[in-house]
Amino acid sequence: MEQPISYELLNKIDSPEDLRHLPIESLPEVCKELRDKIIDELSRNPGHFGSSLGVIELTVALHYIFNTPYDRIVWDVGHQAYGHKILTGRRDRFCTNRKLNGLCPFPSPSESEYDTFTCGHASNSISVALGMAVAAARKGEENRHVVAVIGDGSMGGGLAFEGLNNASSTPNNLLIILNDNNMAIDRSVGGMKQYLLNLQTSEGYNRLRYNISKKLHQWGVLNEERRKSLIRFNNSLKSVLTQQQNIFEGMNIRYFGPVDGHDVFALAKVLKEIKDMKGPKLLHIHTIKGKGFKPAEEAATIWHAPGIFDKETGERIVNDTSGMPPLFQDVFGKTLLELAKKNDKIIGVTPAMPTGCSMNILMKAMPDRAFDVGIAEGHAVTFSGGMAKEGLLPFCNIYSSFMQRAYDNIIHDIAIQKLNVVLCLDRAGLVGEDGPTHHGVFDLAYLRPIPNLTIASPYDEQELRRLMYTAQLPDQGPFVIRYPRGRGVLTNWECPLEAVEVGKGRKLKDGSDLAVITIGPIGNTAAKAITEAENTHNCSIAHYDLRFLKPLDETLLHEIGKKFSRIITIEDGVLKGGMGSAVLEFMSDNNYTPMVKRMGIPDHFIQHGPVNALYSICGIDQTGIYNTLIHILNS
Amino acid sequence: MEQPISYELLNKIDSPEDLRHLPIESLPEVCKELRDKIIDELSRNPGHFGSSLGVIELTVALHYIFNTPYDRIVWDVGHQAYGHKILTGRRDRFCTNRKLNGLCPFPSPSESEYDTFTCGHASNSISVALGMAVAAARKGEENRHVVAVIGDGSMGGGLAFEGLNNASSTPNNLLIILNDNNMAIDRSVGGMKQYLLNLQTSEGYNRLRYNISKKLHQWGVLNEERRKSLIRFNNSLKSVLTQQQNIFEGMNIRYFGPVDGHDVFALAKVLKEIKDMKGPKLLHIHTIKGKGFKPAEEAATIWHAPGIFDKETGERIVNDTSGMPPLFQDVFGKTLLELAKKNDKIIGVTPAMPTGCSMNILMKAMPDRAFDVGIAEGHAVTFSGGMAKEGLLPFCNIYSSFMQRAYDNIIHDIAIQKLNVVLCLDRAGLVGEDGPTHHGVFDLAYLRPIPNLTIASPYDEQELRRLMYTAQLPDQGPFVIRYPRGRGVLTNWECPLEAVEVGKGRKLKDGSDLAVITIGPIGNTAAKAITEAENTHNCSIAHYDLRFLKPLDETLLHEIGKKFSRIITIEDGVLKGGMGSAVLEFMSDNNYTPMVKRMGIPDHFIQHGPVNALYSICGIDQTGIYNTLIHILNS
Repeated sequence: MEQPISYELLNKIDSPEDLRHLPIESLPEVCKELRDKIIDELSRNPGHFGSSLGVIELTVALHYIFNTPYDRIVWDVGHQAYGHKILTGRRDRFCTNRKLNGLCPFPSPSESEYDTFTCGHASNSISVALGMAVAAARKGEENRHVVAVIGDGSMGGGLAFEGLNNASSTPNNLLIILNDNNMAIDRSVGGMKQYLLNLQTSEGYNRLRYNISKKLHQWGVLNEERRKSLIRFNNSLKSVLTQQQNIFEGMNIRYFGPVDGHDVFALAKVLKEIKDMKGPKLLHIHTIKGKGFKPAEEAATIWHAPGIFDKETGERIVNDTSGMPPLFQDVFGKTLLELAKKNDKIIGVTPAMPTGCSMNILMKAMPDRAFDVGIAEGHAVTFSGGMAKEGLLPFCNIYSSFMQRAYDNIIHDIAIQKLNVVLCLDRAGLVGEDGPTHHGVFDLAYLRPIPNLTIASPYDEQELRRLMYTAQLPDQGPFVIRYPRGRGVLTNWECPLEAVEVGKGRKLKDGSDLAVITIGPIGNTAAKAITEAENTHNCSIAHYDLRFLKPLDETLLHEIGKKFSRIITIEDGVLKGGMGSAVLEFMSDNNYTPMVKRMGIPDHFIQHGPVNALYSICGIDQTGIYNTLIHILNS
Repeated sequence: MEQPISYELLNKIDSPEDLRHLPIESLPEVCKELRDKIIDELSRNPGHFGSSLGVIELTVALHYIFNTPYDRIVWDVGHQAYGHKILTGRRDRFCTNRKLNGLCPFPSPSESEYDTFTCGHASNSISVALGMAVAAARKGEENRHVVAVIGDGSMGGGLAFEGLNNASSTPNNLLIILNDNNMAIDRSVGGMKQYLLNLQTSEGYNRLRYNISKKLHQWGVLNEERRKSLIRFNNSLKSVLTQQQNIFEGMNIRYFGPVDGHDVFALAKVLKEIKDMKGPKLLHIHTIKGKGFKPAEEAATIWHAPGIFDKETGERIVNDTSGMPPLFQDVFGKTLLELAKKNDKIIGVTPAMPTGCSMNILMKAMPDRAFDVGIAEGHAVTFSGGMAKEGLLPFCNIYSSFMQRAYDNIIHDIAIQKLNVVLCLDRAGLVGEDGPTHHGVFDLAYLRPIPNLTIASPYDEQELRRLMYTAQLPDQGPFVIRYPRGRGVLTNWECPLEAVEVGKGRKLKDGSDLAVITIGPIGNTAAKAITEAENTHNCSIAHYDLRFLKPLDETLLHEIGKKFSRIITIEDGVLKGGMGSAVLEFMSDNNYTPMVKRMGIPDHFIQHGPVNALYSICGIDQTGIYNTLIHILNS
């Protein structure tokens, strides 16, 4: 039986100002209520769970010590910002989190002045916060604090390093909080992780050093000269006391910590003490992802975004999916293993998404054949290029919107040399509740201009398998396969692995009044709309699955150009420059003059919400396509 | 009078194998001849000068000690690879360097098996080399060495850090050579630079540590356990001997150095001693950019790519440019200063290109108003976003091909929030001798799909000034201005600063037979071709300068759509998805059915050579445009 939850304190906190009026003794109770609230809400309305639980105490301490929103808190990624949302006036709307027209999945400045910047892609917080700190200094707002909160996984991203590298060379008072939980969505990897692990072992030394620094600070505000001599002193001290090294101080960023990130008093104390120190500084805290909810503490990857669950038993409530088509992700993962067993050149590469893209299937079965390179999309692609140059065949799987991070790497390190790398773009198209930062709608348009790429998108799971098989045949050059998040359409997906002809589309259905050209799984929606139109109206509609955006199937397009005066193109990507534009270019270049109606994602950022609702908003759900078919037939 | 140069040794070196047959005593003479050769050739045939002179000894030592091409040397950027080219069978063709159909400006695998990977954009070498090292291990080629040579400037790039971060977590024998000359093209900046500066002060300690490590190595090949205990031992040792910290060893990458990079014996010795040590390692060497040519040593930025010069006097031979139109770069730089004086929100941001883009004009006049953030394009954009969010107005200037590095940052950190950042894309279009890695031909196509951007390209210098003025008016949102390398067309460029209406093109010339639509300075070439066509044929050709790719000037395009049945679009960017496609989309969406001929960059990578020759190859020089005009008029 459910216990009634008391939100005695939380219900009085309509803004951080209210929080700051509470005595410090009540902070643990605020944390408890905040944790209860998040557990309760997320048990019913799914969302990012573990990250937010891990930073409850940090969130409370930050808003307690800093004068938000005048002081700026920049959350990296923003998975962890639920506590922040609840404390900043969104408590009662939190039940709408991630829903259509409800609260945004990540901090969003359009939603609240407490959300200082867009986040969603990892590692941007230091650069953003540095920009804000520089702006504050420039505007003479010397009393404004800017705090970046970044996880250890995000700290491995190149952008975070670029921010760090720049932070020390510019006068600023930036505070970076390194939230070290040894996790991205999956477990953190790489040298930085190892480095942070080492740092924590020197806690005794760090405490001593911190006390000395505090002492000096109490004698007066540290000026630049004193700060430098303090760092020198500290380093000498360190060389006597410990064998630890500190990357951050090496870069002239003052280091504090590690501090227990679940001790709200300790956090409040250290934040208060260091906040007015001049110059860039970093506070290293240790937290546990999923803190306060045992199942989540024990299985952090599963509980990153667990779906709904029974908050009493900790049991995740998983719908019965037997008889349903599989996830594209699982088809990818299983097929990759199948291929890797037969082709020993195949290597899997993922930037910190082994579970999300199901490359963990290969990793588990053949651990030496797959690499999780950490949150480092650019490196993932260039590293794949290096392997391909030496004859291996990397399948590099990166979510479509994250692949934007590796754009130059694709051009410079893959395409120019025509290297045999299979770029698998998971989460292509609209992704739903993760919203505008995560929709994979630009890929067709941004990849199409790059020479030497083959670009394909499968109509269904069997096609995904066939494309993967085709991509690993000898000398295919760079081969892009993009497919969406979620379930396909076939239950009998385990077809034989056969090649498709590169650059060949398929005529799915003959017709005479109108040609529909689709690419990717949205073709299934189009097929239904076509059947519906033919059933309700006296018409005959042809349907072509283009399959390859590049190279274009010119034979097929000539056939269409010759036969049809009306064409509809449908894609789950942006209209500007996408597949429809490719068709227009072909028709124009070959002097066909059909009327072409292009359907796809319009020229603005699409909000969050259920995928189907978003497709409906864009007019490319079954109804939208049906209505357009009828409209064109009647025109 | 010129001294005859003796290449007694060099003339016998047709491959590194020949070099390796020489006694070690002759290496300094090889270095001398190589240096003479580069100085001599570059005095007549301009190229990247200082970088190559700085790594003469390293180049000789690498090819002497390593078994190239079986062993892989991965040059970062590749500015410095001239010595490498000369030693690897390209001595006699070196006089064709950077010329049309001549040697490539950077290492290129299509040119030589000694050129292991494409380079041109900084910071990719560690990721590439790691991929190669992993491939070697996977293929059982344990005796293959892979060496990445990276400058300290490139080491500040996020991609290099991602590579480092990953290098320690994968079994590999990668050797990274950090070529520390305290320079990118301009002086290096940032925490990493400071860090490396500190490292060199601990040379005594490092020598001791190196000797110990060598000793241990001589007792037998170090196994993993020994290696780890050695690192622990070294760190303890260090904590006693020095207050220095080492980022690299903190990330489990073994550090050696610093070594004098101009002592070829020392280099050969250390390379020989460490090459067979297992595990990732880094050798830190100090070099002087331009070493061996006094003027270059003293003014490294100017002598990065000095043009031709008198090798006896060191005088650069600069053509008389009085009376010629200014460089677009100088118009940008001077106008930025002019604007910054009037609008105190304006801040300049450049990733390591202050001289190249002429932002040094602002830096010199108002040092607190411009930031060189190092080779860090992603950070440059996101940092600008942070400043813009706080009310400043950054002009972030990044070469077009380097902006590919910041693609996600533009979408995620600028466009979603409609931040007031002016993105200035220098080196747009074909850049000439720097070749395929540097051509700025993708930008129109990759930027066009991004919502909320304004995208403009000026017809001439006055238009550049007007667009810059317009971009800094209040609340313009993200504003892209792309313009080419080199000289404009007007000598009287200093027009008053006036606004243009956003999204409004211009009719440059009326006509009745055909409409030509151009964007950017290529419109000037088109104008000449139009005049020529009208002079030689009885025809009347209208010419429109679209000026804004986004938002499109719909009024103007309606006018064209209604009036003309034949349209030619001309742009200095890729045909797939570019301005011509935007025109096609507009015409299709609005049911116009003109014949549209799109002219621009075809779908393959364009080689290096003089800009005019390359435009001719692409058919968009005056002759190519003229021929197309006549062809269309006659069709």
